Amino acid sequence: MITSLSNPKIKNVIQLLTGTKYRREQRLYVIEGVKLFLEAPADKLRQVFLTQEGYEKIRKIRLEIASLVTDGTMTNLKGPACELVSDEVFRHMSDTKTPQGVLCVMSMPDHRVSEQIEAADEELLVLVLEEIQDPGNLGTMLRTAEAAGVSFILADQKTADLYNPKVIRSTMGAIFRVPVIYTEDLPKALRRLKGNGVKLIAAHLEGSKNFWDMGYPERAAILIGNEGNGLSDEITALSDCAVRIPMEGKTESLNASVAASLLLYEWKRQNRTL
Amino acid sequence: MITSLSNPKIKNVIQLLTGTKYRREQRLYVIEGVKLFLEAPADKLRQVFLTQEGYEKIRKIRLEIASLVTDGTMTNLKGPACELVSDEVFRHMSDTKTPQGVLCVMSMPDHRVSEQIEAADEELLVLVLEEIQDPGNLGTMLRTAEAAGVSFILADQKTADLYNPKVIRSTMGAIFRVPVIYTEDLPKALRRLKGNGVKLIAAHLEGSKNFWDMGYPERAAILIGNEGNGLSDEITALSDCAVRIPMEGKTESLNASVAASLLLYEWKRQNRTL
Repeated sequence: MITSLSNPKIKNVIQLLTGTKYRREQRLYVIEGVKLFLEAPADKLRQVFLTQEGYEKIRKIRLEIASLVTDGTMTNLKGPACELVSDEVFRHMSDTKTPQGVLCVMSMPDHRVSEQIEAADEELLVLVLEEIQDPGNLGTMLRTAEAAGVSFILADQKTADLYNPKVIRSTMGAIFRVPVIYTEDLPKALRRLKGNGVKLIAAHLEGSKNFWDMGYPERAAILIGNEGNGLSDEITALSDCAVRIPMEGKTESLNASVAASLLLYEWKRQNRTL
Repeated sequence: MITSLSNPKIKNVIQLLTGTKYRREQRLYVIEGVKLFLEAPADKLRQVFLTQEGYEKIRKIRLEIASLVTDGTMTNLKGPACELVSDEVFRHMSDTKTPQGVLCVMSMPDHRVSEQIEAADEELLVLVLEEIQDPGNLGTMLRTAEAAGVSFILADQKTADLYNPKVIRSTMGAIFRVPVIYTEDLPKALRRLKGNGVKLIAAHLEGSKNFWDMGYPERAAILIGNEGNGLSDEITALSDCAVRIPMEGKTESLNASVAASLLLYEWKRQNRTL
């Protein structure tokens, strides 16, 4: 059992929890809690840390994983490395107020735009994010994107880090199911989408049409910009059309995840098969 | 200038900031920041607390208010009581990391369902909330409700407190413009709406129709339930129809403010005049 905070594995977890840069270098991230653990893709699990209590919980639910844990140092070649840790060490690693005693280090998936386009059917819905800063918004958008049937999410490097513990929690497991691609060159990626017959629809306060007055083709990307400033001129200029969400009263803008939801579901409404 | 945290006015502000119950008893709440101060209805302003810096900011923007402040104890009968406070005292009152030096005590408005119904045109859109717990969700819903043209919001007593500082901030001023009524008897208030020709449309995971496959009459109320459990059986039974938001993937539910946005804007889409 690990009982010291200076254990290098524990130090590594704490660095992964706090630093975006460190996470990106290591291509690793951390998930916490029983529900996320059970939903996590097994081939991406690298390490599992359990308190005695967490171990008992998991053992009741999923014997085959728990059987890997026999002592505090064990690494089983057939599965991820499992480690028992003391309650105190776990509290230091945990991002929550009432830890469930289960925490995993995961490998980041490596998705590419070209592969996503090839894998798509005739229908292709993409959510494109430029400089989304609020972790809560990002998590909500990921969850809504899955529900609306998005094939993948494309984000620029200034968008908040998906692997921030707050985002992970608010995605409710969608993080494992919706591919998210952070691109270094968003204009280039958008041109590639256009080249593959995807219509780029920008949500913009000065859009020329109301969002419901436009035809949404079966291959479309919905472009959502920064909470304060919206989409940049460069990205807006690349889009095929800009739509606005009509607003009464004195509201200056809608929450970014609300705007994304309205456009994604308008696509879905127009492209429904039933 | 107030320099002591034991000043009764300062103690009162701190109690108003932290306690829902105290706010409800006093029928007072607190707003912070230059933007909210400038948007606040003048007849509801009770006290204004300014740091020297906050005072200079306001003076540049709105001379007539700033002219009320001449010394630290002044109360002007023509306007709200203004007080200069030291930076240190202000930091203790402030709910933000970088305070702007402006904080006001406001009177809560006293809206009634009957008055709201009487004031309405033929068209009447109401957002009904049951046990919404997340302050962020509540703030986002208020902002979206204003944009969608909601006449008022009706909430049960278990819904989060609108006057929580977090909610106020996330409403972006909509708190001053959208009437919110907390009712002690939600079923009774809903029956009153029905009696006035308002159709009650419940967002429900087991709704019989997709939300876009229903006709939304010009008098409608959209019912949104608790983040984890949805609407109660009692409230669902009172509604005229239950609609679901179709979801792909393994998403179990959408964020409550996303669900509210989709139904409010579907009403707006169907009832648009252009």
